Amino acid sequence: MNLADKKCVPCEDASTSKLSLEEAEELNKQIEGWGLEEKNGHLQISKEFRFADFKEALDFVNKVGAIAQEQGHHPNLYIIYNKVKVVLYTHVIAGLHENDFILAAKTDGLIKQ
Amino acid sequence: MNLADKKCVPCEDASTSKLSLEEAEELNKQIEGWGLEEKNGHLQISKEFRFADFKEALDFVNKVGAIAQEQGHHPNLYIIYNKVKVVLYTHVIAGLHENDFILAAKTDGLIKQ
Repeated sequence: MNLADKKCVPCEDASTSKLSLEEAEELNKQIEGWGLEEKNGHLQISKEFRFADFKEALDFVNKVGAIAQEQGHHPNLYIIYNKVKVVLYTHVIAGLHENDFILAAKTDGLIKQ
Repeated sequence: MNLADKKCVPCEDASTSKLSLEEAEELNKQIEGWGLEEKNGHLQISKEFRFADFKEALDFVNKVGAIAQEQGHHPNLYIIYNKVKVVLYTHVIAGLHENDFILAAKTDGLIKQ
């Protein structure tokens, strides 16, 4: 099953399944252009999206926000005029979970539409 | 005239009026809770707003976005679940302009409504 077609599991269940660096690297191959990095003591993935202007950037943030609400999993979203940086990790496990890659794939799906 | 009642001037006009640190400190007294700091070689002001959840945070970002569009002056907006950090400076002058304080005052006005 494609990552984009999966659903995020509730964070309580997520607590058992923190990905190792190797597992995260493997899943990261299934999405495009996401940087995998360690920051503030935890692994995260991030990607910057570029738009024509602020309005388009904000529209994108709202679409990502709708997916986040639906999936119960929320990325950090940084709007810098026409750019949006999406940062994903799972707070409760201080690291990466498959949920993060599912949300990344769904986020990429917004651009392809 | 209150800062919140003023209008941002176009950025082309803004280029002549970069505030000194002393001028910025003076204007910063007219708004509440904004940190004035030097970052990446320029002065900026920032404030963190806290909400009940992600949805409320996103609603706030959309309201700030509407003001930004109306005023033609756009803060950086960082959404971290239920928190929104608003960062203001004027890109073209790589520093602070009265516009930034006007937008800060209008942003604070959203919370008081």
